[in-house]
Amino acid sequence: MNAAVRAVVRTALHHQDLAVFGIIGGYAGLLESNLQRLESRAMANILQRGGTVLKTGRCLEFHRPEVRAQAAQNLRNLGIGGLVVIGGNGSFMGAHLLAQEHNISVVGVPGTIDNDIYGTDQTIGSDTAVNTALDAIDRIRDTATSHDRLFIVEVMGRNSGFLASAVGLAGGAEEILVPESPVPLEKVVQKIQASASKGKRSSILIAAEGQKPGRAYDLAEQLRKRAGLDAKVCILGHQQRGGSPSASDRILASRLGHGAVEALMQGKTQVMIGVQGGKVVQVSLADAATKSKPLDRESWLLASTLA
Amino acid sequence: MNAAVRAVVRTALHHQDLAVFGIIGGYAGLLESNLQRLESRAMANILQRGGTVLKTGRCLEFHRPEVRAQAAQNLRNLGIGGLVVIGGNGSFMGAHLLAQEHNISVVGVPGTIDNDIYGTDQTIGSDTAVNTALDAIDRIRDTATSHDRLFIVEVMGRNSGFLASAVGLAGGAEEILVPESPVPLEKVVQKIQASASKGKRSSILIAAEGQKPGRAYDLAEQLRKRAGLDAKVCILGHQQRGGSPSASDRILASRLGHGAVEALMQGKTQVMIGVQGGKVVQVSLADAATKSKPLDRESWLLASTLA
Amino acid sequence: MNAAVRAVVRTALHHQDLAVFGIIGGYAGLLESNLQRLESRAMANILQRGGTVLKTGRCLEFHRPEVRAQAAQNLRNLGIGGLVVIGGNGSFMGAHLLAQEHNISVVGVPGTIDNDIYGTDQTIGSDTAVNTALDAIDRIRDTATSHDRLFIVEVMGRNSGFLASAVGLAGGAEEILVPESPVPLEKVVQKIQASASKGKRSSILIAAEGQKPGRAYDLAEQLRKRAGLDAKVCILGHQQRGGSPSASDRILASRLGHGAVEALMQGKTQVMIGVQGGKVVQVSLADAATKSKPLDRESWLLASTLA
Amino acid sequence: MNAAVRAVVRTALHHQDLAVFGIIGGYAGLLESNLQRLESRAMANILQRGGTVLKTGRCLEFHRPEVRAQAAQNLRNLGIGGLVVIGGNGSFMGAHLLAQEHNISVVGVPGTIDNDIYGTDQTIGSDTAVNTALDAIDRIRDTATSHDRLFIVEVMGRNSGFLASAVGLAGGAEEILVPESPVPLEKVVQKIQASASKGKRSSILIAAEGQKPGRAYDLAEQLRKRAGLDAKVCILGHQQRGGSPSASDRILASRLGHGAVEALMQGKTQVMIGVQGGKVVQVSLADAATKSKPLDRESWLLASTLA
Repeated sequence: MNAAVRAVVRTALHHQDLAVFGIIGGYAGLLESNLQRLESRAMANILQRGGTVLKTGRCLEFHRPEVRAQAAQNLRNLGIGGLVVIGGNGSFMGAHLLAQEHNISVVGVPGTIDNDIYGTDQTIGSDTAVNTALDAIDRIRDTATSHDRLFIVEVMGRNSGFLASAVGLAGGAEEILVPESPVPLEKVVQKIQASASKGKRSSILIAAEGQKPGRAYDLAEQLRKRAGLDAKVCILGHQQRGGSPSASDRILASRLGHGAVEALMQGKTQVMIGVQGGKVVQVSLADAATKSKPLDRESWLLASTLA
Repeated sequence: MNAAVRAVVRTALHHQDLAVFGIIGGYAGLLESNLQRLESRAMANILQRGGTVLKTGRCLEFHRPEVRAQAAQNLRNLGIGGLVVIGGNGSFMGAHLLAQEHNISVVGVPGTIDNDIYGTDQTIGSDTAVNTALDAIDRIRDTATSHDRLFIVEVMGRNSGFLASAVGLAGGAEEILVPESPVPLEKVVQKIQASASKGKRSSILIAAEGQKPGRAYDLAEQLRKRAGLDAKVCILGHQQRGGSPSASDRILASRLGHGAVEALMQGKTQVMIGVQGGKVVQVSLADAATKSKPLDRESWLLASTLA
Repeated sequence: MNAAVRAVVRTALHHQDLAVFGIIGGYAGLLESNLQRLESRAMANILQRGGTVLKTGRCLEFHRPEVRAQAAQNLRNLGIGGLVVIGGNGSFMGAHLLAQEHNISVVGVPGTIDNDIYGTDQTIGSDTAVNTALDAIDRIRDTATSHDRLFIVEVMGRNSGFLASAVGLAGGAEEILVPESPVPLEKVVQKIQASASKGKRSSILIAAEGQKPGRAYDLAEQLRKRAGLDAKVCILGHQQRGGSPSASDRILASRLGHGAVEALMQGKTQVMIGVQGGKVVQVSLADAATKSKPLDRESWLLASTLA
Repeated sequence: MNAAVRAVVRTALHHQDLAVFGIIGGYAGLLESNLQRLESRAMANILQRGGTVLKTGRCLEFHRPEVRAQAAQNLRNLGIGGLVVIGGNGSFMGAHLLAQEHNISVVGVPGTIDNDIYGTDQTIGSDTAVNTALDAIDRIRDTATSHDRLFIVEVMGRNSGFLASAVGLAGGAEEILVPESPVPLEKVVQKIQASASKGKRSSILIAAEGQKPGRAYDLAEQLRKRAGLDAKVCILGHQQRGGSPSASDRILASRLGHGAVEALMQGKTQVMIGVQGGKVVQVSLADAATKSKPLDRESWLLASTLA
């Protein structure tokens, strides 16, 4: 995120007549007019840091029209002509309504580790999250192999199997369970038993958390009951967030942050800056907020072929 | 562990008349005479790998005297005159009994990430585990700070608060809960509220798993009920094992593995090779197997002073 | 590389009638018929390892037609119908000639950290190399900032500024010197002095090694002589190779290795498997071997805007 | 370093009547009275950062008595009663003279990656530097093994082979060249050739930079001329500094920083806080500044036995 903030600030200052303010704490900060002028020098040495120098947080009341009206008023009082929103579907929906109802120019930048935003191949943070999860899986693999054990590793991904699929392919997982394409338990058992019969004595299953974080415990319980398999469970949880961002994420964030300011300068509004086929693109913010991005089935199937 | 295996093998081969066999899969492997001759070249490029090239596993039946008699017979049949056992209390107890009952020379090398072995300041694997857990905590800190949140991070440590204490001091935790020194919930709540009143809006609590892995969930539940605090839970679990070992662990393992062969060459038996005040020492294996190591209270208290 | 080898082997074994041999030590190994049958199980646990389980090396004599004739004969003697070559321009040229002269089916997979292969957006190893270099730069930044110093960091890239440009953008470098677009020394000096006059007291310059590794020392010498600037030099060198591959590299390698076997199964020859706009593609191997890939000027310019 | 600063500040504030100021930029900052009041909150989230929030730098003029008199005057003007100096021999000598000449209470904390300070087993930063160098060596090992090559890796250590010795033992180096115990070139050549004759086709030599950084190039040149050996050179240089500190370094820094304030509170002066045999100790600052610490020959010899 910090890389995107830096890119927005420095691109804007590169055009000499722009001033940039950071909103501290997301929409809640906007409602309290908690803004801070951002200068170029304050952006030094933030590129390598995880988290965000602008704090963040959920703001449920932003769903209410009168609250958004207040937000728009605050922006006008401060003389702010354009808003760059870094976040996911929820943040984009808020921005979209703000723009529609109050004629504020808004541009979205996709930042979520789930990589589940329609209209962009990558979101800021997902490459780092995949690498962090992969580190954990490589370590778990050491134990699985030394102890001939079966592990279930639960990774983030409420509606999306992207992280599970990427991590599973990169980590050589024996099975990947994703929300988009449920696999019956029998098939999972068969696969583990088939592996075992070929002499493979350790396995790692990756499961996206889906609607119910902690489901890996249920799965382990079922494997025990139905097939007598003893599986250890690891929930990666919040460890997948944070940490110094990967090169790829910093570059993506720099490109998208830069693109957001360019879009505002071109008079665009209600667009999200994404990347498709390697190119920076502008897509409808409403689409980004509402449409769902399909799973990359190629990676998911390839992981299975190579397991 | 691999560093210790390498040190044992290469030290033994350095004395020209010794041959070395690795037992594959711990005591269970010994019962099946699953041994493998270990040459110097096979030790190349294992120093940096997590896990162990000799597999491992629990062997509950080793508690029975007749099973140990079989193990001793297997060793004699193979002409093996000395046994180096890398592990924790359980492994040491087995080795101690094997030595007492069957006059086998045994030397222990402390290898457990909990660092809870009596007679040695450090055990192989603990420095790596502390650094791995610290990495996770640094990442969680990014989120805690960005979102103004309270986190409970559960680290390994069944009977020992070593890992929790080290990680908590190094990671700047606001509170560290260890089995050796239980803190009443009221005190924890008071501390969090005191921090909050000083303007600190994010906190990390470290909890050793103790006798009940998953206790962090209970703690979070209690904080919610009694004090209305919303705490996120992270269970680091098996991710703390494995991974490329730290420099300090590789050096320790090299010194202890070397010391184990030296001890066998000196005709010693039933000793554990440890490190005390920076020096390699030999201590009674029975003591190592049975006595408990006190918590380093200095670190635990210092963490609290500096939080 | 190991991820690509694994993908080739497992994809091939997935099609039941294929057998796979690994050539140990590149073309030199082929000349000595140093091949090894590769089974699925041998591919376990290599995904996370740097280097290559098949060794590698230069083979200058492969430039001679009679040597290639011998290589083709060896392949025929072994009953090998298709060859997958993982490497860069030189390896591809050898493969291309082998195919043209002796009617051997060859497919190329781009593996070089310089990311300078025509026909593919990414090469295997480049993402890992960028992240490794970035780690070093983040550490150097700590010292640069603490000591108010100027650093010149030399990264790999004989003909290509890709690595320099990516690392420079991700690392917040003040200036990036690439072979494709030489910058006069005066401009570099001006930029450093302009930064200094804005209060910036530490800077990092990234220089691609170009045709002359060690040129960073010359540059530092010139900055000293002409502008009285005291610059420290770091040559990253071979540290940029090796190491556990990033998730992105493992996924890319898996996709390309899989694509290579698919291409052979389709009867294709003299193609390289690349990735363009996120899709796996087949391009002419001759083009990949001979055409040069232009610098991504967008990244290079963006780094300058954001510095 | 930041962990030590944090420990000094928070320990001091724990004793309610103390105020703490940080000197920005070392002795040069002291001469300009460039001080900053340090509060507890400002110490949040610095534990995991490399470098130092207080900047640093050499100050050659501090060798002159009249300059030290000015520094003492500045401290008195600010009402500062005790000075904690984090650094190496040079910084300690300055502090020692300041104390002797002007009756200022000074306490030293050893912070240098070379681990070459008399009176302490460990210095702050050395464990991190060893791990950073080891990472690089593990990566280089991948290339050395894949390409059957000989590498010379130059690590820091002007007068001390500590870093070389630790890294060499942990990294499985075939030979370690340290300033304290020069090895004739013939012996190095013999060892490499002996390894080669046993079938070992790749080797890594570690060389401490000694009085002449870049000596690894000379060594490679000599190996080429005298023995026809082709060695690649890697100079780790400034990459060994910086980076997020290891757990061990953060704990050491916390203990020493805490000990420094305790010492000042006890009325001590001209002592260095060190660690010996795991215990925090106070040693004469003059000794720490002037006496030299012998090489840990045990590690150095052990590396050779295990290579």
